[in-house]
Amino acid sequence: MKINEHYRELEQSYLFSTIAKKVAQFTQEHPEQEVIRLGIGDVTLPLCGAVVEAMQQAVAEMGQKETFRGYGPEQGYDFLKQAISDYYGEQGIAFNLHEIFVSDGAKSDVGNILDLFSTQNKVLIPDPVYPVYVDTNVMAGRPITYLNATADNGFLPLPDPAVKADIIYLCSPNNPTGAVYTHAQLEQWVEYARAQNAVILFDAAYEAFIRDPSLPRSIFEIEGAKTCAIEFCSFSKTAGFTGTRCGYTIVPEELQFEGMHLNAMWLRRQTTKFNGVPYIVQKGAAAVFSPQGRAQTRENINYYHENAAVLADALREKNIWFTGGENSPYLWMRCPDGKSSWEFFDFLLRKAGIVGTPGSGFGQNGEGFFRLTAFGDQENTRKAALRLKEVL
Amino acid sequence: MKINEHYRELEQSYLFSTIAKKVAQFTQEHPEQEVIRLGIGDVTLPLCGAVVEAMQQAVAEMGQKETFRGYGPEQGYDFLKQAISDYYGEQGIAFNLHEIFVSDGAKSDVGNILDLFSTQNKVLIPDPVYPVYVDTNVMAGRPITYLNATADNGFLPLPDPAVKADIIYLCSPNNPTGAVYTHAQLEQWVEYARAQNAVILFDAAYEAFIRDPSLPRSIFEIEGAKTCAIEFCSFSKTAGFTGTRCGYTIVPEELQFEGMHLNAMWLRRQTTKFNGVPYIVQKGAAAVFSPQGRAQTRENINYYHENAAVLADALREKNIWFTGGENSPYLWMRCPDGKSSWEFFDFLLRKAGIVGTPGSGFGQNGEGFFRLTAFGDQENTRKAALRLKEVL
Repeated sequence: MKINEHYRELEQSYLFSTIAKKVAQFTQEHPEQEVIRLGIGDVTLPLCGAVVEAMQQAVAEMGQKETFRGYGPEQGYDFLKQAISDYYGEQGIAFNLHEIFVSDGAKSDVGNILDLFSTQNKVLIPDPVYPVYVDTNVMAGRPITYLNATADNGFLPLPDPAVKADIIYLCSPNNPTGAVYTHAQLEQWVEYARAQNAVILFDAAYEAFIRDPSLPRSIFEIEGAKTCAIEFCSFSKTAGFTGTRCGYTIVPEELQFEGMHLNAMWLRRQTTKFNGVPYIVQKGAAAVFSPQGRAQTRENINYYHENAAVLADALREKNIWFTGGENSPYLWMRCPDGKSSWEFFDFLLRKAGIVGTPGSGFGQNGEGFFRLTAFGDQENTRKAALRLKEVL
Repeated sequence: MKINEHYRELEQSYLFSTIAKKVAQFTQEHPEQEVIRLGIGDVTLPLCGAVVEAMQQAVAEMGQKETFRGYGPEQGYDFLKQAISDYYGEQGIAFNLHEIFVSDGAKSDVGNILDLFSTQNKVLIPDPVYPVYVDTNVMAGRPITYLNATADNGFLPLPDPAVKADIIYLCSPNNPTGAVYTHAQLEQWVEYARAQNAVILFDAAYEAFIRDPSLPRSIFEIEGAKTCAIEFCSFSKTAGFTGTRCGYTIVPEELQFEGMHLNAMWLRRQTTKFNGVPYIVQKGAAAVFSPQGRAQTRENINYYHENAAVLADALREKNIWFTGGENSPYLWMRCPDGKSSWEFFDFLLRKAGIVGTPGSGFGQNGEGFFRLTAFGDQENTRKAALRLKEVL
C-alpha cells in the first residue's frame, strides 16, 4: 500500500502547540502572574438564549418517537437553508435552496471542496494566511503561488494580471490581519478570476463583524461573482458556534467549468462523503436568524467590538501601526522597535503576561507583525490594554 | 480551472431516489394502501433517556460563560475517548487515547481516510456492497477489483492469494447482507493483508448487533490486525445517532507504510480539514457507555432484533433462502420464483405494500436478492411479516 507522498512535504511544527509550550513553561516559572490570552481565535461568550432554547427543544424532540429525526438530507434541512436564503435576500442577493449547503463549519468545507478540483491547478493564496489553505493544497500536491499582503498595500493585495491562477483564496474580513476589501477591490478580483477562468474560494467567516455599511459582506454583492466564486460562511464567530459546529457553503448554479456544474459535483461529494449536521445543531443555527437570536448575537458581537476598540485605542496611543479591529475581531500590529514576531511574543508574555499570536506563524509576510484577538473577556481585555500601554 | 475529471465517471442514478420515486407513484395511485417501509437503514426508536439527559445538561453548560466550550480537540474530548478505550478494554483489546479519533460518523471517515493513500493503490471491494466504498474510490480514480460475495460462500468471501490488493474493504456484520465473519475467517483476511502489505478498512458499524459471543466484534480481536487495519465504528445503529452524528475511528500506532505512521497522518488530516464533533453530541455519545445508557441502548437493539426474528421466521416458513437477521439488523433474501431484484421490489410494493431495497442496487452480485431492514416499528414489522407470508 502506497501512502499519499505529499504528507511528507507538510511542515512539522505547528504554531499553536509551540505557543502552548511557551505559555506552559512561563506559567510554571511564574505561577503568580495572571496570563491574559489574546491569541487563539476562539470565542468566550456562551451560546445565546434563543439558541440554547431551540437546542433544548430539539434534544427533547429527539427523545420522543413521534418527533425523532434519523438521517437528514446531507445538504441540511430546508428550515435552515430557507433562513440562510432569507439572510442573503436581506442583502439583495438571491439564492435557491439547492445552492445552499449546510456544513459542520467552514474549515471542513474549505478543505473538502478541493476534492472537486484537479490536482493540476495553480493555487493563489495570500501571505500571511490561515494555514489551512496552504496545508490542504500541499496534501493534494498543488503548486502554490503566494499573493503578497504587506503594510504597503494595507494587507489587501490586488490581482496581478501577469500571475496565472486557477484557484484563488480570499478571506475578508481577513484572518489574521482583520483587513477588509472594498466593493471596488473585490470587483477587481472577480474580473481577474473571470479572465483567468478561475474559481474564487471566498472565506466570509467574519462577515458579521463588518459595521461599515459600505464594505461588502459577501462576494456575491459583486456582479459576476456567481460565475466564479464559492462562499464559505460560519456560525462560529457570528454566534459562538466554535464548539457547536455549523456553517454554510454557497455554490451557485451558474458556476461551471469544463461543462460540469460545481453545484452538482458538491452535492455528489457531500451525499457520498458526509452525512449532514446534527438536527439539534441545525435547530440552534436556525434560531440565530430569529429576531431574538439576531438581537442576542448582535449583542455578543458588539461585546467583541468593544474589546477590539479598547485594544485599538491602546495601540493608537502608542503610535503602533496596525490594521483590523474596526470591522473584524482581529488586530494586526507591527512589532515595535524592530522586534521579530517571536521576539515580541516572548516580550509581551514575559513583560505583560499577554499571549498573542506571532505573525510569522501565518507566513513570511507575517514576520515583524503580531495578531491580537478581541474574543476575550472584557475585563481581562481592558487589563491587557493597560498593560500594553505600560510596556510598549 | 480544471475539475476533477473522475467525477464524470460516477454513475448518475442513485438507488434510494429511484425507490422514492416508485413509492411516491404507488402511494399516489393507491392512497388507501398503508405502505410499510423496510428499506432504508435508518433507526426509528428515539434517543434513549440517558443520552437525552446528558445532552440537555451539555446544552445548558454551553449557555453559561463559566461552563461554555469553544473549540475542542479535533480528535475528540478525552472523556469520550476514555469511554471508547474502556469499551475496547472490556473486549480485551487495549488502545491508547491517541489511537482513537472521534468522528461525525463512519461515512465521513470511511471517505476521508482515502486522503492518506496514493491514488495508485489497487482497491478490493466486496460485491454486493455499501455504495460509498465504490464511489469514493471512483472519485479518486483508483482501480477497483470486486470480491465476489454469493450464496455459495454465504456472502462471506475469503481472500484469493492470486489477487493483488493494497486497500481492502470489509464490513462485518455486513451491509447489505447481514452476514458476519468468524474469527477464523478474519484471521485469513489479516494474514492476506499482511502478505500483501495492504491496509484493511474494517467497517464495524453494526458490531453492537452481534449476539453470538463466538463472533468477533472488532478486527482487533485478530492477532496482527494492529499492523494492517483501521476500524470504523458508529453510534448511528448502536444508539440511534443517525441524525445526531457521532462515531469513532481507530488508527493503531503500529500501522505504518513506507516509514509513515498512519496515526500521525490521520491526526494531521483531521487537525487540518476538520474541527471536531459538537461538545453536546460528544456528551451524548459518552452517555451511551454509562450503565443506564448501555441498558437503554441494549433494549433498543433487542427491539430491532425482535423485528429481525419476526421477519426471519416468515422467510423460513416460506422456505426463502436468506442470510443475516441473527447478528445484524439486515436480512438478505433470495428473490422467489427467479424474480429479478427490481421485479421483486415492484411485486412486494404492489402486492403487499412493503418497501425493501433491491439487491442489484448494491452491485452485480446483488441481482436476484433483496434487503429487508429490522429498524422499523415493531407493530408494522409484524404486519409486514404477515403480509409476506400471504404473498410469498
